Amino acid sequence: VSQDSRLPTEDGALRSWIAETDAHTLAQALNRADPVQRSRIFRALPPEKLFAVFAQLEPTHQADLLPGMEEGELKALINAMEPDDRVRMFVAMPTEAAARLLTKLEEPELRSTRLLLQYPKETAGRIMSPEFIALSPDMRVSDALAAVRREHERAETIYFLPVTDAAGALTGAVELEDLVLSVPEARIRSVMKHVPTVSAFDDQEVVSRLMKNEDLMAVAVVDEGDRLVGIITFDDAMEILEFEEGEDIARGGGSEPFGQPYFSVSIARLVRARVVWLSVLAVAATLTVNVLDAFESILQNVVTLALFIPLLIGIGGNTGAQSATTVVRALAVNDVGPEDALRVAIREALTGLLLGAVIGLAGFLIVWIVFERDIAFIVAAALVTICTLAALVGSIMPILARSLGVDPAVFSAPFVTTVTDATGLMVYFLIARAVLGI
Amino acid sequence: VSQDSRLPTEDGALRSWIAETDAHTLAQALNRADPVQRSRIFRALPPEKLFAVFAQLEPTHQADLLPGMEEGELKALINAMEPDDRVRMFVAMPTEAAARLLTKLEEPELRSTRLLLQYPKETAGRIMSPEFIALSPDMRVSDALAAVRREHERAETIYFLPVTDAAGALTGAVELEDLVLSVPEARIRSVMKHVPTVSAFDDQEVVSRLMKNEDLMAVAVVDEGDRLVGIITFDDAMEILEFEEGEDIARGGGSEPFGQPYFSVSIARLVRARVVWLSVLAVAATLTVNVLDAFESILQNVVTLALFIPLLIGIGGNTGAQSATTVVRALAVNDVGPEDALRVAIREALTGLLLGAVIGLAGFLIVWIVFERDIAFIVAAALVTICTLAALVGSIMPILARSLGVDPAVFSAPFVTTVTDATGLMVYFLIARAVLGI
Repeated sequence: VSQDSRLPTEDGALRSWIAETDAHTLAQALNRADPVQRSRIFRALPPEKLFAVFAQLEPTHQADLLPGMEEGELKALINAMEPDDRVRMFVAMPTEAAARLLTKLEEPELRSTRLLLQYPKETAGRIMSPEFIALSPDMRVSDALAAVRREHERAETIYFLPVTDAAGALTGAVELEDLVLSVPEARIRSVMKHVPTVSAFDDQEVVSRLMKNEDLMAVAVVDEGDRLVGIITFDDAMEILEFEEGEDIARGGGSEPFGQPYFSVSIARLVRARVVWLSVLAVAATLTVNVLDAFESILQNVVTLALFIPLLIGIGGNTGAQSATTVVRALAVNDVGPEDALRVAIREALTGLLLGAVIGLAGFLIVWIVFERDIAFIVAAALVTICTLAALVGSIMPILARSLGVDPAVFSAPFVTTVTDATGLMVYFLIARAVLGI
Repeated sequence: VSQDSRLPTEDGALRSWIAETDAHTLAQALNRADPVQRSRIFRALPPEKLFAVFAQLEPTHQADLLPGMEEGELKALINAMEPDDRVRMFVAMPTEAAARLLTKLEEPELRSTRLLLQYPKETAGRIMSPEFIALSPDMRVSDALAAVRREHERAETIYFLPVTDAAGALTGAVELEDLVLSVPEARIRSVMKHVPTVSAFDDQEVVSRLMKNEDLMAVAVVDEGDRLVGIITFDDAMEILEFEEGEDIARGGGSEPFGQPYFSVSIARLVRARVVWLSVLAVAATLTVNVLDAFESILQNVVTLALFIPLLIGIGGNTGAQSATTVVRALAVNDVGPEDALRVAIREALTGLLLGAVIGLAGFLIVWIVFERDIAFIVAAALVTICTLAALVGSIMPILARSLGVDPAVFSAPFVTTVTDATGLMVYFLIARAVLGI
């Protein structure tokens, strides 16, 4: 499709734009560009900017760009990456390509990469950094500061310093702040604090949410033997949360997330991310055809009833979407857990009933004026029932999903809408049959 | 409704639970509790835990709890709060109550509160902390470390230290890391870095998004005269982003956000947060009644056409929701701007067309088998048109909203669905009229 107008197309303009733009901004522009523009700009980068820009690209883009690179440059590049960034890139590649690339790593880089790759996908172990400065409890504060000055270059951060015993087990941690504010002779043992630890096998979203809720600058990651294996810093945790939120939002809209900037996704991938869910929902929607088919004789007698079908299922769908969205979010931020199912169901059903009563009353009056009282009564009664039902279904389905270990966002708005459509129509025609006596 | 089963109800159990639980966990439990439980637990808190728990409560809950407190305790409490927390609480209160409370502040607390309150709602000035340690460019690193040790108690953070000239204008900043890693004799001038600054009048979401994108630990806030007036730390920025994301998600589901934990919101407030949008959508949905009314004669002739109404508008709504959700998110994370409107419209319309073609082809075959070819053709043609239209509308409305300065999330899924319902029906019956020749 049409090109991003914010990027220079002419070669001279491109070179001077690259020269005067910092690595971070360049990386952002590359991340948003389409594949053709991206590889063109990347090839134009001067060596001194190449590493910094590459480090800040989306992992999938990194993986795409590597094949076009010259052997020596490629080797230098992947060896210079941070271990957690490198692992993210490896994971974004086809398995054989990743295996081929592993052979190009130097010994220490290979070791740290293997360490992270041994943990399952989406765990704390996969996103941690194995490059930390560990202190011992018997050190003095002055020794610790000397260690920090000596080792800061290879460490992910010097703000959070885990303390380990001789066996490598975590016993606490100090922040740089504690070192600066303590007397140099003090022992680390007397300065350090107990800190929450997470297992390398813990889910990355759970760990990130914990760090956000407890305002932790970093968290220590331990293996099965309680040995310290890495740390996760706040900024990495926030990135995980943003990714997970994007995932929830995409699923809430009935499509699979693609986890990279909008314009860098091809139309074919946009279609792929949506077609499966849309087809599932379309199949579910054929239920409505069956329901209407079953009530066709009523419809033939009173065609006026057909006029309100889109209105009823529209309002039902919206009420269900409101409940589903609220509950999915409450689940995501841990305000609500599976044990609250009954409490949530009662609250939401009551809310739906009140909403249905308000809309139903208004509907009754309007339909009475324009059409007739019987139809008005049928529409109003259907509205109250449908709103209650939709709110109930919309709130329970995400909790049910969580209990079953499925992402609750999958069962939000579009799914709830489709399910309540069919039940709503059934309610409508059952009420109509009762009232009109057909 | 039913109580939170995780909280002790009996007095003795409550006291021992409070005694063995840390302030942070207590605050989280209070934030989630319903109003009755909350004030009961709050009254049971011992003095040594009261301040720490109160500081971590939602601003609206803080405002609710104050009236029940004893005068001396209340005074001590509000004077001990952090300036930005205090301002957030004041803003959550009725104006007269806030004015009355202002008179109970000591002089320095009053000054810092007034400073923040002078900036408009949702700006950087409102969320910044005025309690920072400012260094001067001529200081030595050793002097700066001494200043940090002397003043750390009253400062929000010692990790980010702004540097100002004699006139109070910002000239740069150092991180604690820079001080620790530099020689004690070095001048701050030679250690400090240029840092991005924001205006106190900048939007809080824009500032927070900038901090997240650029991975800034803190940012300096300046007034109209470029004088340093405060700093915003990363954790506060992340809270803003979480709040804004919750707002986007709520609006994406067609309700107003309430910005506090789910169970602490009363059912009356749940209804209020949803009833306005639901009513607006219901009024918009009456359009569908009009459209069907206009085509009633066709409907009377071929009742079979009615069977596909919910299916068609359901699939159209879902396609529109997919596009809207994608574009709202892309706008929120700045992947897409108003200048990209045409590019987005083309991409999404094409995606909708392809999705419509896939679903339409499947629909054609199924309807042909069960019903007849003419009906199958009408349904399939309507599906292709409706999907294209829905994707187009779903992508353009959020961008249009952004151009008009309205929150794009307001025009997402439910709104798009309702608008496309009416147009979809029109398309369906126009195609039917043309094909059947009625």
